[in-house]
Amino acid sequence: MNFHILTLFPEMVMGGLKTSITGRAMEKGVISVEAVNIRDYSHDKHHHVDDAPYGGGAGMVMQPGPVCEAYEALCEKLGKKPRVIYMTPQGKVFNQSIAQELSKEEDLVFLCGHYEGIDERALELICTDYLSIGDYVLTGGELPAMVMIDCISRLVPGVLNNEVSAEVESFHDNLLEYPQYTRPEVFREMAVPPVLLTGHHKNIEEWRRQQSIKRTLERRPDLLQNAVLSKKERKYLDQLLALAKEQEVEDEKDGESVFTDGASSGAGGA
Amino acid sequence: MNFHILTLFPEMVMGGLKTSITGRAMEKGVISVEAVNIRDYSHDKHHHVDDAPYGGGAGMVMQPGPVCEAYEALCEKLGKKPRVIYMTPQGKVFNQSIAQELSKEEDLVFLCGHYEGIDERALELICTDYLSIGDYVLTGGELPAMVMIDCISRLVPGVLNNEVSAEVESFHDNLLEYPQYTRPEVFREMAVPPVLLTGHHKNIEEWRRQQSIKRTLERRPDLLQNAVLSKKERKYLDQLLALAKEQEVEDEKDGESVFTDGASSGAGGA
Repeated sequence: MNFHILTLFPEMVMGGLKTSITGRAMEKGVISVEAVNIRDYSHDKHHHVDDAPYGGGAGMVMQPGPVCEAYEALCEKLGKKPRVIYMTPQGKVFNQSIAQELSKEEDLVFLCGHYEGIDERALELICTDYLSIGDYVLTGGELPAMVMIDCISRLVPGVLNNEVSAEVESFHDNLLEYPQYTRPEVFREMAVPPVLLTGHHKNIEEWRRQQSIKRTLERRPDLLQNAVLSKKERKYLDQLLALAKEQEVEDEKDGESVFTDGASSGAGGA
Repeated sequence: MNFHILTLFPEMVMGGLKTSITGRAMEKGVISVEAVNIRDYSHDKHHHVDDAPYGGGAGMVMQPGPVCEAYEALCEKLGKKPRVIYMTPQGKVFNQSIAQELSKEEDLVFLCGHYEGIDERALELICTDYLSIGDYVLTGGELPAMVMIDCISRLVPGVLNNEVSAEVESFHDNLLEYPQYTRPEVFREMAVPPVLLTGHHKNIEEWRRQQSIKRTLERRPDLLQNAVLSKKERKYLDQLLALAKEQEVEDEKDGESVFTDGASSGAGGA
């Protein structure tokens, strides 16, 4: 799979992606990442690529010419017109299933806006997808492009050494991941949960699933609606819900609520 | 404001943040960003920081010792215990108002997990906030930390040259931003909307607000519920809704729906 990034900051995106798993995938040749400097397509002798917005207002807007020419040169080189993703808070919010869909493409172009964005006409001419990584404002499209490329790469066959890894990870069956422990067995008087040391795979699996359910209930109850649970697990969830309800009644007497912020509701692991 | 990043990939995070607006803010001394290499706190002669998970399973888990010691050394240096944010898909989803709240801190620590995550005991001991940048799986906490730092920095006074800029941007009044245009006036036979060339500020402002409303309706109707609109703007929205409904009836006759994907529903600008 080939990622092409149209940007004013090629070193930034390449620097962020050459590390760790995406870096290794590039070395193995399973993915390729190429940054095209939009500035190289400026016709201005000072290599300007932006100008003040028509109608006034703060900041600078990227001109349509260099953006379109950078894309057209890329298409000519590739001999095809790949999908072009523009990263904008105005886009559809990126998620794991969009990543899955995009990971099936052979080539993907990421167009990174900067400053106050890109002239609307360039976007109309070349963009096929408008995506946002979340409801927050960032300086440019570079970090969102790196985020999406990291996420999509992990779904390309051959990128993760261990196929199991991607599957067991967060959001499997719409449940959060169970807590993880490694050596030492006792750290600052905190012991690893005993079941993990038994070597009894069935019990370990059952404990982990229960931890996942408990944690999802505590931190992201919205996910549970679509969680895939066995009959036994469903019963466990019902018990937790009943317990929480009891607790709530207790706490109402004491004048406080059981479900505060997800972050402060405890790890549910140890 | 001082950002401290505990990571196994210090060059990656520093490289990504030294560019553009965060880079300039660092130069001006309005923010500082420091990356602490967790590996420096390994007691292992090979500088290992991870080990296999107890209970089995794919991947490696970061050991609690180096993480806690890196944090404690930082606290000792600072003479205080700042909030520690752990980036995880299990966290509360980061957004603009969380960024606003965090921008008021003097020091913030970002703990970046990698591989299969960090031993739960270390998290229990030091983390105060669990945050996620969205519902997708990434290789490590480094990209999310960079995203959050970029977003939070922009809200620190003195970081953006033009205070107007942060305010007019996306999500102001819960509306998406209007389309932007810059030179040339005609690009590939596409002209800039005439109103923007009139110099009539009131008309320009009105046009831009209408474009924002139209675009929000087309791409992110979920935001409109909390949009701040004048009486006249409310009326404009009602007209658009009536028009869309009419169109829908028309299209039902033709056998297709008017609201398809946000991305393909047109720019609403030209």
